Amino acid sequence: MEVDEVVCLPRLSRVAVCGGTHGNELSGVYLVRELLKVKKGVMEKEEEQEEEEPLSVLKVLSNPRAMQQCRRYVDTDLNRCFTHIVSLSPSGLTSGTVPYEMIRSRELNAMLGPKGRSGAVDLVCDLHNTTANMGLCLIAYSDCDWICLHIFRHLQRKMPDIPMRYIHFEVSNKESYSLDSVGKHGFAMEIGPQPHGVVRSNVYTAMKAGVQHMLDWVCFFNSGTLFEGESVDVFTMIKHIDYPRDSETRNITAAVHPHLQDRDFCPLHPEDPLFQTFSGETLRYKGNEPLYPFFINECAYYEKGIALSLARKRRVVIPTIRAGRRSRNKQLTYRNWLQRKRSEDGL
Amino acid sequence: MEVDEVVCLPRLSRVAVCGGTHGNELSGVYLVRELLKVKKGVMEKEEEQEEEEPLSVLKVLSNPRAMQQCRRYVDTDLNRCFTHIVSLSPSGLTSGTVPYEMIRSRELNAMLGPKGRSGAVDLVCDLHNTTANMGLCLIAYSDCDWICLHIFRHLQRKMPDIPMRYIHFEVSNKESYSLDSVGKHGFAMEIGPQPHGVVRSNVYTAMKAGVQHMLDWVCFFNSGTLFEGESVDVFTMIKHIDYPRDSETRNITAAVHPHLQDRDFCPLHPEDPLFQTFSGETLRYKGNEPLYPFFINECAYYEKGIALSLARKRRVVIPTIRAGRRSRNKQLTYRNWLQRKRSEDGL
Repeated sequence: MEVDEVVCLPRLSRVAVCGGTHGNELSGVYLVRELLKVKKGVMEKEEEQEEEEPLSVLKVLSNPRAMQQCRRYVDTDLNRCFTHIVSLSPSGLTSGTVPYEMIRSRELNAMLGPKGRSGAVDLVCDLHNTTANMGLCLIAYSDCDWICLHIFRHLQRKMPDIPMRYIHFEVSNKESYSLDSVGKHGFAMEIGPQPHGVVRSNVYTAMKAGVQHMLDWVCFFNSGTLFEGESVDVFTMIKHIDYPRDSETRNITAAVHPHLQDRDFCPLHPEDPLFQTFSGETLRYKGNEPLYPFFINECAYYEKGIALSLARKRRVVIPTIRAGRRSRNKQLTYRNWLQRKRSEDGL
Repeated sequence: MEVDEVVCLPRLSRVAVCGGTHGNELSGVYLVRELLKVKKGVMEKEEEQEEEEPLSVLKVLSNPRAMQQCRRYVDTDLNRCFTHIVSLSPSGLTSGTVPYEMIRSRELNAMLGPKGRSGAVDLVCDLHNTTANMGLCLIAYSDCDWICLHIFRHLQRKMPDIPMRYIHFEVSNKESYSLDSVGKHGFAMEIGPQPHGVVRSNVYTAMKAGVQHMLDWVCFFNSGTLFEGESVDVFTMIKHIDYPRDSETRNITAAVHPHLQDRDFCPLHPEDPLFQTFSGETLRYKGNEPLYPFFINECAYYEKGIALSLARKRRVVIPTIRAGRRSRNKQLTYRNWLQRKRSEDGL
């Protein structure tokens, strides 16, 4: 491998691990509480011994009021409040009529951001649960953030028994809406199936391991480890499908078909069963191409009009990377790297 | 079998099927909505053709406000409001400070009761879901209500693929607290696992079949069918176990152990793993005898301080029964029947 194929990226000195962004997704709530007890984890100590600049890990309970009530949110979904976070006027957000989560999102932006600015934390890992049978997913806005993609590959290797996917929501930086968009890099770590309001030991343990391996990777990266380029399957969200609904009441009139339930990431082909109405009729998928369903029957998405989401799978090549200490000018952008690689490969 | 061993019981002319007593337990909500669409079901029609007195099936959505918000309850758990329902003063329940569910419980008592009086419906079947892996359970206050027990055996025979148990909460008529206690006979039909706020097709279908078979049985019974005596396994609730909690915050400090999770109705022996703390430690069951756990990790019971319940299993003999039309004087009480049977058996 040519030396100039190594992409150098800045060290990640500040990482935020957030739980309770949705107050009833309990793995993250209890994991962050546990991390807050252990003020200085073993790994952070070790890291401190080796490095001049220790890794700072912020542990954040994002929505304490919702957590207290064991609800997703109090007034509005906190994880949709970060789109225009920068442009919000402080004066408009102090009165009692402002949704609690709008106020809280500003506090979080002050703590972890400001979003899009140099002062923001380097990486936000926001912990979530789903009722869908999705295993462990990293969900990010970019398919060319190779910090996130390398972390994903590291977790895949370290946790071979956990089904793991990388989901890409193709939304511009400007339109990104979730807490993880506040960091320079960021993703949601989504694990299921787990009912909201419940903590299952196996899901908690998987999340704990996932966070630990993520932090390990950051330490390896910061200490100069070279991470070889490779390819990764990325699921890019294409569209959502709503439940069939009664035109008057808007009540759903069907459930996800039993043949589809729990088959997240198994290809859904045209004419495959999609829903089963409450009177027993089967409704079929009318799309033109096979796509990959996920978030199948997620509890919180009934109100958002989403019975499942559909993705296209593709293989993304990620470059070899290492931390480029005090040598930012040597960094390659992904586009430059890809262009160069394609030209070398004669493409 | 001796003729005098047949226990005659009054026909069941009014049956109530209730859903949404907990507004986020969705199988019952959607099933009752579906039943309300079908104003006269096939079975009821058939029954009408054969019988002078048609079976009246009341379909009730118990907690519409909680359903609308997709929450268990608005102010207080409706299914704990029926203990002293008779003695409540109407004047005290009209002001705005009274919990909504207290008012609603009176409305339901007026509709289906009055509890403990001759005007009450003959049978209440109240539909519930649990996040615990309990299959289909009938939960009743009596282990000698052989209407309920014969219905249970009928369902077991008709639905051999669904794990099915009869749970007995040993609570006196006076102290019974749930909606099903308003009928002359009553039980909760509890099906899981299903996350609250979610409807899974397989659970919905099982509940639909369970209700259909229950109504079928009532029709058979009313039309004079003799149901042979037999024996039934009954799980009598002995005690609840709470999660380990932080003495100051009261937050839970452990989850149900992965070896116990989803093992409802598998015997739990002394020293078996019970919880796994969030720091990874295993806590063991310190009881003196093996018991049968159920409602393991039920979402709604975190706030009630119940991580799981424990039952003792025993075999209950139920007599042959048939509807005793216009011959109530021939009826045997269960105690009389049991005494006679024991004396005949030389016990």
